[in-house]
Amino acid sequence: MSDQSAVTVIGLGPMGRALAGTFVNAGLRTTVWNRTPGRDGELVERGATSASSPEEAVAAADLTVVCVVDYDAADSVLRREAVTGALKGRTVVNLTADTPGRARDTASWAAGHGIRYLDGAIMTPTTTIGTPDAVFIHSGPKDLYQEHLPVLEALGGTHTHLGEDIGRAAAYDVALLDIFWTAMAGYAHALAVAKAEGITARELAPFAKGIGAILPPFFEDIAEQVDQGNFSGDVNPITSAASSMAHIIHASEAHGIDAGVMRAAEGLARRVIGLGNGTDGFIRITDLLGTVGAARTAGAGH
Amino acid sequence: MSDQSAVTVIGLGPMGRALAGTFVNAGLRTTVWNRTPGRDGELVERGATSASSPEEAVAAADLTVVCVVDYDAADSVLRREAVTGALKGRTVVNLTADTPGRARDTASWAAGHGIRYLDGAIMTPTTTIGTPDAVFIHSGPKDLYQEHLPVLEALGGTHTHLGEDIGRAAAYDVALLDIFWTAMAGYAHALAVAKAEGITARELAPFAKGIGAILPPFFEDIAEQVDQGNFSGDVNPITSAASSMAHIIHASEAHGIDAGVMRAAEGLARRVIGLGNGTDGFIRITDLLGTVGAARTAGAGH
Repeated sequence: MSDQSAVTVIGLGPMGRALAGTFVNAGLRTTVWNRTPGRDGELVERGATSASSPEEAVAAADLTVVCVVDYDAADSVLRREAVTGALKGRTVVNLTADTPGRARDTASWAAGHGIRYLDGAIMTPTTTIGTPDAVFIHSGPKDLYQEHLPVLEALGGTHTHLGEDIGRAAAYDVALLDIFWTAMAGYAHALAVAKAEGITARELAPFAKGIGAILPPFFEDIAEQVDQGNFSGDVNPITSAASSMAHIIHASEAHGIDAGVMRAAEGLARRVIGLGNGTDGFIRITDLLGTVGAARTAGAGH
Repeated sequence: MSDQSAVTVIGLGPMGRALAGTFVNAGLRTTVWNRTPGRDGELVERGATSASSPEEAVAAADLTVVCVVDYDAADSVLRREAVTGALKGRTVVNLTADTPGRARDTASWAAGHGIRYLDGAIMTPTTTIGTPDAVFIHSGPKDLYQEHLPVLEALGGTHTHLGEDIGRAAAYDVALLDIFWTAMAGYAHALAVAKAEGITARELAPFAKGIGAILPPFFEDIAEQVDQGNFSGDVNPITSAASSMAHIIHASEAHGIDAGVMRAAEGLARRVIGLGNGTDGFIRITDLLGTVGAARTAGAGH
C-alpha cells in the first residue's frame, strides 16, 4: 500500500492549480511543479512545496497527478531520463486530456520503464474541483485505481472506473468534449445571428437555457434508440431537421455570418436523405458516420 | 373582440395534430385541414371538424393557426385566391418555422390583403403541447396578440410576446434551433466515436446528460460576457479549446469518422488565435462571426 499522505501535481494551469489547492486543503503533503515558473506562489503560501525540478517533484510522493495541456506537454516532462528514472515503482495518474491512442502509447511507455500508470479525465470546470459537482473518470488496472482512490477522492466529486482498457477514459473524454464544444460552437453562432437580428445575448439566454434543459432527456432517449439500431423518425423525421438547418443557414448567411458548422451538419443530414432514409430521425447520422468509418477501416486493412 | 370559442388549424403533421388535439381537448370548436388528406381521422373522432378545402377551413373561425413544414408550404395554401379572400378581416397566427425574412414578407402580404397577422414559433417537442412544459414565442402587433391570447393559451405552456417586429419570433427560433441542432450533431458524432471505441450509447448517456446539465449555466455566464464585450479566457483560453477540438478530430478521423462539423468549429477557433486573441475565451468566435458579417454587410452597401 502506498503512502497516502503525500501527492505530487505536475502542471499548474487553472485546472492543475485547482487540483493542487484541493489536495492542500485536504491536508495532503502536496508538491508542485510547472514548466513555466511562477505559477506556484499562492499554493506555496497555502502550504504546498515547490519542487525545483520535475524529478524532485515526482520523487516526493508515491503518486504523481499530471494535468498539462496535452500529451506532447506531458511527454516532454515524463520522458526526461531523470524523471522516468525517479518514477520507477511509483504511480502516475494522467488527467491530461488527449486521444485514446496517446493514452495507450503512454501506458506502453510506462510499462516499459516500471512505472505504474492510470489514465483519467476531468469532465467538469475548475470551479467544481473540491466540490460534490466534480466528475472524474478513470481507466487502467482496477487494483491500482483502488489503491490510489483515497488520495483521488480528496479532490471531491464522483470518481468512476470505466474499465481496464487504459484508453477508455480518454475515449469518453473525447466523446463528451465533442458534445460540449460542438454545442458551444452552436451557442456562439446563435448569439452572432441573434445580435445581427437585434437580439442581445441576455435576451436570448433564458430561452437558450430552456434548449439546454431539453437536451439531457433527448440524449437518453436517443441512446436507447442507437443501441437498438432503431432510427425511427416518427416524431421528427430528418427531412424536417434538414429543413430547420437550411433556415438557420439562410438566416445566418443573409447577415454575412459564416454558417460552416451548420453546413457540415446539414450535409450529413442530406446524405442520410440521399441514401433513402429521409423518414428516419436525425440520429441516423450516427449510423452513417459509423458505417463510413467501419468501411474505411476495413478498406485500410487490405 | 373575436369569437374565442372556435379555431382553425392548417397543417396536420405531428405538431399540427398535437395543436389541434389540444384545442379539441380545451373545448374549442376546432376545424382542421391538411394538404395531404387522411391525417384528420383521429381528430374528427375526438370532435374536430374536417374542412373539405382550406378556404372552408379558414372561414370557420376568426383565428387560423398555421403549422406546416416551411413558408413555401404555408404560402402554397394561404396565397390561393379563395383562401386569401376568406381570410380578409380574420387573423392568422403562423407557427410555421422559417427565417425572419420570410416572416416579414408574409406580414407584408397579409397587410396588403387585409389579413391580421401574428408570427410565432414553438420551442418544445410535440409531447409538451397541452402541458406546462410547452414554450411558445410570438411577435407582431401587441393588441392583436392579446386579443387572441385566450385561445393560444388553450395550448398550455408559456407564451411570450417578444416584440412588435414580426420577424422577432423567427429570429429567436432560428437562433435557438441553431443551438439545438448543432448540439444534436455533436451528440450524434460523439456516439459514433464512442461506438468505434467500444463504448455503447447507453454507457455514454449518463455522462452525456452531465455535459448537457452544465450547458445552461455556461450559456448564462457567456451571455453576460458577450453583451459586455468581455471575452476573457482566464479560466479556459481558446487555445485550450482548440487543443481539445484537435484531439476530437484526431480521435474521430483515426476511426475514419468524418469530423467536418468539428473541423469547421476548430477553424473558427484557429482564426481567433491567428488574429492574436488566443488568450480570449472560446466565445470570442461570436465576435469574429459578427464582425465578418458586419463588414460584409457594410461592403455590400457600397
